[in-house]
Parts: sequence; C-alpha cells; structure tokens
Amino acid sequence: MTADPASLVTDLARRARAASLALVTAPTAVKNAALAQLADLLDASHADLLAANTRDLASPEAAALTTAGRERLTLTTAKLAQLAQSVREVIALPDPVGELLDDRTRPNGLRIRQVRVPIGVIAIIYEARPNVTVDCAILCLKSGNAAILRGGSECFHTNTALAEIISRSLAAAGLPADAVQLIPTTDRVALAHLLKLDTLIHCVIPRGGESLIRFVAENSTIPVIKHYTGVCFVYVDRDADPDLAEKILLNAKVSRPGVCNATEQLLVHAAVAETMLPRLASALLGQGVQLRCDPAAAAILERSKLAHTDATPADYTAEFLGLTLAIRIVGSLEVAIATINHDGSAHTDAIVTRDSAAAARFQAAVDSAVVLWNASTRFNDGFEFGFGAEIGISTDRLHARGPMGLRELCSYKYLIEGSGQIRN
Amino acid sequence: MTADPASLVTDLARRARAASLALVTAPTAVKNAALAQLADLLDASHADLLAANTRDLASPEAAALTTAGRERLTLTTAKLAQLAQSVREVIALPDPVGELLDDRTRPNGLRIRQVRVPIGVIAIIYEARPNVTVDCAILCLKSGNAAILRGGSECFHTNTALAEIISRSLAAAGLPADAVQLIPTTDRVALAHLLKLDTLIHCVIPRGGESLIRFVAENSTIPVIKHYTGVCFVYVDRDADPDLAEKILLNAKVSRPGVCNATEQLLVHAAVAETMLPRLASALLGQGVQLRCDPAAAAILERSKLAHTDATPADYTAEFLGLTLAIRIVGSLEVAIATINHDGSAHTDAIVTRDSAAAARFQAAVDSAVVLWNASTRFNDGFEFGFGAEIGISTDRLHARGPMGLRELCSYKYLIEGSGQIRN
Repeated sequence: MTADPASLVTDLARRARAASLALVTAPTAVKNAALAQLADLLDASHADLLAANTRDLASPEAAALTTAGRERLTLTTAKLAQLAQSVREVIALPDPVGELLDDRTRPNGLRIRQVRVPIGVIAIIYEARPNVTVDCAILCLKSGNAAILRGGSECFHTNTALAEIISRSLAAAGLPADAVQLIPTTDRVALAHLLKLDTLIHCVIPRGGESLIRFVAENSTIPVIKHYTGVCFVYVDRDADPDLAEKILLNAKVSRPGVCNATEQLLVHAAVAETMLPRLASALLGQGVQLRCDPAAAAILERSKLAHTDATPADYTAEFLGLTLAIRIVGSLEVAIATINHDGSAHTDAIVTRDSAAAARFQAAVDSAVVLWNASTRFNDGFEFGFGAEIGISTDRLHARGPMGLRELCSYKYLIEGSGQIRN
Repeated sequence: MTADPASLVTDLARRARAASLALVTAPTAVKNAALAQLADLLDASHADLLAANTRDLASPEAAALTTAGRERLTLTTAKLAQLAQSVREVIALPDPVGELLDDRTRPNGLRIRQVRVPIGVIAIIYEARPNVTVDCAILCLKSGNAAILRGGSECFHTNTALAEIISRSLAAAGLPADAVQLIPTTDRVALAHLLKLDTLIHCVIPRGGESLIRFVAENSTIPVIKHYTGVCFVYVDRDADPDLAEKILLNAKVSRPGVCNATEQLLVHAAVAETMLPRLASALLGQGVQLRCDPAAAAILERSKLAHTDATPADYTAEFLGLTLAIRIVGSLEVAIATINHDGSAHTDAIVTRDSAAAARFQAAVDSAVVLWNASTRFNDGFEFGFGAEIGISTDRLHARGPMGLRELCSYKYLIEGSGQIRN
C-alpha cells in the first residue's frame, strides 16, 4: 500500500465511476464476452487459485474461524467448477439494461419513456466465502454496474487471485479493468472513508454478520440495501390439512436450519392445537428439533409426554439459525397476524390452511416481504423465484424487497422526446 | 413537552407503526373519505388557520427569514383554497396499493404474485412552507403510509393547527389518528434520535436546504430518499434548430430560475457557436441573465460586444438558483456528454438537435434522471409527468429517481400460493 487509506479508496472510487460511465452503454454481447472469458479462465486457473486459497487457510485469521467458516473459505476443484458454471448461467440470463418500463405521451405531445439503467457504482462489503467475489462481480457486470469489492482479511489472497482473473477477462473484452476492483486492504479506516464517498458510489450492499451490516448502515451516507435477520413464522390455521402442515413445517425448519428463510417459530390455532400440535411436535423431535413452548403449547406437549422446554420472552423474537423452534398457541387468525407483525422480522411467513378467505386475509395483513400460503418459507430465494441469480435478500422496503436479482441491481431513467415544448 | 426528546419520538414512532399496520389494508373508499373530510375542514377553518399563521409570522424565527422565506410561510385564503383543491385532486387519483406488478407460475406449480404495498412509516423532515404539511400528509395517507411530520420552528403554530384538522379527518373516517403525527418539538436532539429508529420507521424524506438534507443523510440509519442540487445543462448541438434552441433555453433558464429543474449551464457545439451563441446570449441578456463564459465563449461574445464575465472553475459546477448562466463551448457531442457527466448533478439535462442519432447517443450516455431531447429542463416535474401529485424529485438511484408521486411512496411484497410445495 503506497497511499493513505483515504486517498487509496477515493482514487479507486473515482476510477470505478469512470468505468461505470463506459459500462452504461456497453452492449450485451461485450459484457457476455467478458463473462465467457472469465468462465474459461476460472476453468484454466485451478492451480493458481487453490494455491492462493491454501495461503489464506494457513493464515492466523483462518485459524480463528469456526469449522463452518473454514469450510466456507476453502476452495475445491468442485467449487471452482461450480463457480465457472454459475458464470455461464449469468451469460444466459437476459440483460436487464434498456428494458422499457413505461411509455406515455402527454397532452402537450411530450413522449416520456422510462427505461431500466444500471445503478452506477456498487460497493459490496462481505466476509469469508470467495465465491461471493465472483458472484458479485458477474451480477454487477451483467447489469452494467461498476463493482467495488471489499472481502474479508481471511480471504485476501484468494480474492486477489480471483480479482486478477476478472480484470484480465474485462480487458480481453475491451471493457475497463476498473469495472471490477478489489479494495487492496481490509482496514476499517479505509472502509469508513469509502462509506462517505456518496458522490462517486451509488449503492452499498453489506453481506455477512449482523455487526458488519450494522457498521455499514451506521457509517454510510451512501444508500444501503441490507438484510438483517430472518425470524420466519409458520402459522397452522384451524382449517389446516394436517399432512400439509407437517410436510411444510418440517421442510421450513429442518431442510437448512442455518439460513435466513428457515422457520424459527410455529403458531398453532387453539381450536386444532390439541390434535395438531402433538403430531407436529413428534415429527420435529424426530428430526432433532428442540421445542421452546408458551404455557398453552407446553401443557399440550406435557399431556402427550413430548420433550420441550418453556420459552423465554427472548425466544419469541429469536433467529435461532439452528434446530430450535419457538411454539405458541394463538386464539385466532387475527392474533396470529398481530403476533407475526409484532415479533417477526418482516422477512418470510407462511399460513397453512384450506380456507381461502383466511389465506387472503393473512397474505394482505402480514407485513412481510414474502407471504406464503401452503408452501415452505424456504422458497424466498432468487433461484426459486426464477431470477436465475441472486445477490441477496433485502429486508428493506425501499428499492428492493425480498430476493434481489439482476433487475434489482438496476435503477431507471426517463427519456423525454419533444418538438420544442416549453413549460408555462 | 412532558417527556425527554428520546422517549417522546420513540413513543410517537411506535404509535405510527401501529397505525401503519391498520393503513396497509384500509380500503380506498375509507382513505378517500378522510381526504374529503380534510378538504371540507380546510375550507371551514380559514379563521383558525390564519390566526395560527399570524402567530408564527410574529415569532422571532419568522423575523429572521428572507423576504422569499416569509412569503412561503404566509398563508392566505387563496393559498388555503388551493390546498383544499389539491386534497380533492389526490382523492381523484387511483390508489396505488394492491396493484399487481408481476404474476408468474413456477414449474413446481407455485404462483408468485408481486403486489404494490405501502412502505410503512415515512418520516418527512422539512422547513418553512405550511402547505408541505398537508401535501405530505395526503400523499402518505392515499398510499397507505403512516406519516411522521417534522416541520420548521418558524411554522410551528400553523403546522399544529393543520395537524389538528388532519387528525379530526382521520378520526371521522374511522382511521387511526396516529396515521399522521406532527412531532411537537423542533429540537435537533429529538430529530437525531428519530433518525436511528430503523425498526419503527422505514423511510425518511428530507425536504429543504442542503444542510438539512446533509444532516439527515449523515445521521440516519433509516433509508433516506433525497434530493441534493440540480445543476442542469442545455446542450445546443451542431445540428440544432436556432429557434428551438432559443425558445427552450430561455424557458429552461428564466421561467422559474430558483427551482431545481432550472438550467444552470449552456454548452454549445463549436461548429455553430459563432452564429448561435450571440443570438442566444442576446435573448438571455434581454431577460436579465448574467453570463459567465469560458474563454472560447467569451471571445465570441467579445466580438459581438455582448456583456459577459469570465467564469471561475466553481461556476462550472454551480447551482446558481438565479439569473446567472455558465457557458462553455464544446468540440463534440462526446465532450458535451463527458462534461455533463463530470460536472452536472445527474438531475435533468437536455439536447437541442435535429439529428436523431446524436439525440439517441446523448440520451443513452448522459447519466441523469431525466434526459430531454428538444424540450425544456423544466419538465422534470411530477405534475408534468402526469403523476397528479409530487412529494419531491429524487437524485438518488435507488427506489425512486426523478419525480416521486404516489407509486414512489410504495414498496411491494410477494404473495406465494402453493399446494404443499417444499424445497429440496
């Protein structure tokens, strides 16, 4: 590092801004050519990338990681092949830039078209997993945005090696190499400075633990798209099909308990709790799920001799991210809705019922990004939505809400065509 | 004020959040009934409102205002009639809530609908003009959002009187009175605390001077939609129609020089500057516009004996908000585009030309919210776009860009309908 952190990131952001202006009008074929080159280079560079990754795995930062964290950091030839495959899948996706969103002619003859355009310069602040470096680079490139990437220190050598391949791919297609830049330091001072460069950078996306996301949200004057916790609910209505309820709840809770769209809490209508809850609880216990119950639910499980513990108040708003489930009995659909709106995180919530009126009321009144009827909460996902790619899931309500794909990496502009109109 | 500022605004925000959950599903007819009541009460309350306004005008804060500021603060019966009229116009607009944005069925049978919903709780921080209180309240209400309004201290009594009428209108329609709340203090400590309540408030819109907007952007952990400066350009191309160029430039510069979509800078293609610039300059001088020229433009005006001064570097990025115009000669369309992208504010820029290829290139490459061809920059306006109402113009690229109407006060959610689908 030859410059102080502030000049370093300012210079980098200026070059990103210049590159973004070229990307705005880059033809789809040119962007796809860069992506194709990247896929080929990923296939051809296994040895270099694995060597860089081995250096990271031997670092003191890597030694401090959990087993899961270390697993995420570790590259393998299989993961690299998967990465090249995901680049090829993004090539196949339609280019969102230039899409006509609205076209209206005003009484004065002015024609106003609204077209999708890149946001501009996007900074992505993330941790650990090296595949995020490639995912973010390719999604930003396809959507015509310049990307500034700031990964974690434990992944520094791997990210540097990946960034080098990305730069070569851009250059090979005649695009500015500054279109994707990796910040060559993981210094927090540099990050804090970057977050104030609101005339050069148009959007910040933090991906990682809640403390990183909080740091970005609190220090950024650049608009942030973020994802906090996913405290997702399944509500089993009085008119739920028991087979469907069991199948959906099990999938929502145990198919991948560590992710944000996994269910953390079960609400059961009091009218069916006596019959429904023991069956659901047995199935969950069979999958190793620990049950934390409110007094009404605890009493039912007590009578059925099913293992459980009493919930604490904190359990009712907890994101367990593991094999633990909070359970409450609710007296009505309205109480279920109010409970979810009060204690959930407005991420993903589901109702199981045969009653279409109850489902419609639930879907209208639960104030969450994704509200499901008779399906697993795990479906809040860009690939499951058919977006073909995902850069994250937004729990904000501005710009993007729920899964974010290529469209959500775009803004729009208005093109007005006149014949000399002036305003009175 | 009975509580400390922090508890006061926290309590107010909690009540706004509760009200917003009721507004989400409020029928259009009920929202319109509250608006109709408000229009009638505005008509019936001239005496009370003018009395409150007189108190404000006699305050020390009002004494410190400029003439223009004092004019903005002053209510008249004509302004009140206009305000009631604008409420009735919002009643006539379609309700944006519930609009179906997308409807797709996935291969697994899941039906995914994307529908427009209110954002939730919106805080609007503004200065002076009492009509903003009514405008913001009615646009938030129509779009199903709870509003927290924080006006300026110089307008405190007028705003309080308006808020009282708004509360009565909400109650008359059976809507929660907390749907629109005025912060009963203009304390900065209270504002700073409010800007951190990101679990209760979903969006902050600052309206006013740049220092207020900066304060909000720098202190808020809630997403902000903002508008900084409007440094708008008119570029007169080599193939411009001289009559059109003069007409558009004059309208863009002098029709209302103090607003954000007024033009601040003229670029003229070198090939036509010798003939075009003296004509344009004479017309501008005839309207009292002062011209600040680069050396090439100055030389031409010198030869034509037309009044001008030499521009300083600061003039090339200035938002004059008055009868001053910067002028530069550019050697090509590409230089015009690069100049605007470098020195403009990405707000509103126009090209005057008969060459459709030049216009297309300009509109694609100028990275601004609104890019016009042969029309005045003054058309960047929600009413001119046909939105029927405007809460501001965004210079951000996330969520809303350009004029913001009712749609831009909305988010969306996904409703998924299944038959027991689970994820593999």
